[in-house]
Amino acid sequence: MASQILRRTLGSRYFANHRSFSSDSTPIRATLFPGDGIGPEIADSVKQIFQAADAQIEWEEHYVGTEVDPRTKSFLTWESLESVRRNKVGLKGPMATPIGKGHRSLNLTLRKELNLYANVRPCYSLNGYKTRYDNVDLITIRENTEGEYSGLEHQVVRGVVESIKIITRQASIRVAEYAFHYAKEHGRKRVSAIHKANIMQKTDGLFLKCCREVAEKYPEIVYEEVVIDNCCMMLVKNPGLFDVLVMPNLYGDIISDLCAGLIGGLGLTPSLNIGEGGIALAEAVHGSAPDIAGKNLANPTALLLSSVSMLRHLDLHDKADRIQNAILNTIAEGKYRTADLGGSSKTTEFTKAIIDHL
Amino acid sequence: MASQILRRTLGSRYFANHRSFSSDSTPIRATLFPGDGIGPEIADSVKQIFQAADAQIEWEEHYVGTEVDPRTKSFLTWESLESVRRNKVGLKGPMATPIGKGHRSLNLTLRKELNLYANVRPCYSLNGYKTRYDNVDLITIRENTEGEYSGLEHQVVRGVVESIKIITRQASIRVAEYAFHYAKEHGRKRVSAIHKANIMQKTDGLFLKCCREVAEKYPEIVYEEVVIDNCCMMLVKNPGLFDVLVMPNLYGDIISDLCAGLIGGLGLTPSLNIGEGGIALAEAVHGSAPDIAGKNLANPTALLLSSVSMLRHLDLHDKADRIQNAILNTIAEGKYRTADLGGSSKTTEFTKAIIDHL
Ligand SMILES: CC(C)[C@H](C(=O)O)[C@@H](O)C(=O)O
Ligand SMILES: CC(C)[C@H](C(=O)O)[C@@H](O)C(=O)O
Repeated sequence: MASQILRRTLGSRYFANHRSFSSDSTPIRATLFPGDGIGPEIADSVKQIFQAADAQIEWEEHYVGTEVDPRTKSFLTWESLESVRRNKVGLKGPMATPIGKGHRSLNLTLRKELNLYANVRPCYSLNGYKTRYDNVDLITIRENTEGEYSGLEHQVVRGVVESIKIITRQASIRVAEYAFHYAKEHGRKRVSAIHKANIMQKTDGLFLKCCREVAEKYPEIVYEEVVIDNCCMMLVKNPGLFDVLVMPNLYGDIISDLCAGLIGGLGLTPSLNIGEGGIALAEAVHGSAPDIAGKNLANPTALLLSSVSMLRHLDLHDKADRIQNAILNTIAEGKYRTADLGGSSKTTEFTKAIIDHL
Repeated sequence: MASQILRRTLGSRYFANHRSFSSDSTPIRATLFPGDGIGPEIADSVKQIFQAADAQIEWEEHYVGTEVDPRTKSFLTWESLESVRRNKVGLKGPMATPIGKGHRSLNLTLRKELNLYANVRPCYSLNGYKTRYDNVDLITIRENTEGEYSGLEHQVVRGVVESIKIITRQASIRVAEYAFHYAKEHGRKRVSAIHKANIMQKTDGLFLKCCREVAEKYPEIVYEEVVIDNCCMMLVKNPGLFDVLVMPNLYGDIISDLCAGLIGGLGLTPSLNIGEGGIALAEAVHGSAPDIAGKNLANPTALLLSSVSMLRHLDLHDKADRIQNAILNTIAEGKYRTADLGGSSKTTEFTKAIIDHL
């Protein structure tokens, strides 16, 4: 059952067909950016579990993070980007985004450089991990390249600053098409476009116009438009009202975190970025947790579930099912649980428990 | 207890002292905009309860709404604005904001015209109305004049549109000062500034800088900065982590609705707008609910609690306590409940029950 849900929510067959992945036992190369803080530990967990499950992935590991690499003197090398472009699939751990340090977020740089235009974040209640909400099953699809993230800001006069939000027809149509295609492929019934077009009539208005155009091609899917403030109120009152949500960049950032909160937090939710040319970069979206880094305390679940979504993107559903069931069963069993979920298991103990469930 | 909470959360003595209100029995004039849809019905409820409680308010009623007044051919007359400017206090019902109809939201027009720079929205759990959350007690203080609501938008080229977000030092300092003063006056312990300065380093960065400056003058209040996405996740996981939240306009719009959702929705939460020169305009922030308008089905609670906050602003705490206790006790008793709260009482029945509890 759980595995059915996941297959429904994380598969992404459509976007895998830009490259033909071998289905025999030849290993597939995938890029791995372990990232900052707890990144290397949770990436280790993924590697161990993939090995134990005999998932034929050959990791091409690159360091991308906020510690300057002493050899390359760089946060992000050309080779790292090329690796994803060549492999077309990758997995990334957390990368810290320093506030106001004058250099651009690495997360953003990756999104722009790899043109990762849609960010898919499923949130579903996990058996065995109780929150105030039951049966949550939501998919946030976020435009990932423009909007409030344009980076265009300036001081007009002293004490007056502006940021510019950009919405384009091209990016809006592209993410709307992805959302509807996704909904159809996964048997979803409803797509809600989230906006604030009562205030930003031109930008969010254009976004809605594009969603409406695409919606017309999917008469079997219910299409609705919901103002973001109202959406947040309804999500906390009754998340069952929603199904697939598509929206501009910042609203996606906000709503995907809100949805994650409903089921327990970012430590439990996968994320998959879809790029032009068939690229897919799975990622854990939680922070790098520098306070517990290196202490064998981190919860690898988000990165693990993201790696499962990467396998599904590669059409490796058998391996994906096997690993995913082991993760969900370990959580459902509740014997091994990391500190963030109220347990006292080490990362390595939790990892071993998953391997035992394979 | 409930009344203590409200006095703590809704009083606004500080900003009343621009005008000296009579404390004897001379009636105080206050402007009333019943608004659209269910507005007139819920405004009637307020008028009846005020009369029954002998609250010495003389209402100066004006029509402001999206139906063009046949006599004035206007949505909003000069006299309506002058009335608030003269009385310095007012109460407003819902006004519909048509999406994409090319004319500006009346809510926004009022905020700009009256320079209503801070919007205070308390959310606290109501005895007798159960949600998934207990003991919620949050105050959202929203910058109300600029940010994403600048109205500056344009098409750059075909298919590319921009909106401009403006943050000024003046408005940020002003709302930060209001928030900290409010926190101190009401015995609150913590002010959280909500932002996305990791992405909008200049605009949200300036907002934070201003909050920090003001925070230094209040060493007894804990000051923290929380990224909006994380804030939303934490609010749904554990709202008890927060106390007073201060933020730019759109974030306030989103977070105040989210908080309202935690305790049952916008039908239950008051709102008070604070303007330059001592003006205060209380308002129900829910919609005008055209589908149930005129049917005696609307829930007047939000407008009633807003009218109580208006009384507190006028330092009429005895009357405020009396009315507020009657409202909260009626809800706690649970015998009379409008349809939105799962009951079958008419607006007039609920109103009468409150009067009986006075
Ligand atoms: C770290 C930050 C730049 C990023 C964002 O704002 O997109 C994060 O919150 C996310 O959701 O991936
Ligand atoms: C109706 C709309 C213009 C308004 C806003 O966006 O501010 C409303 O949502 C509110 O919160 O008062």
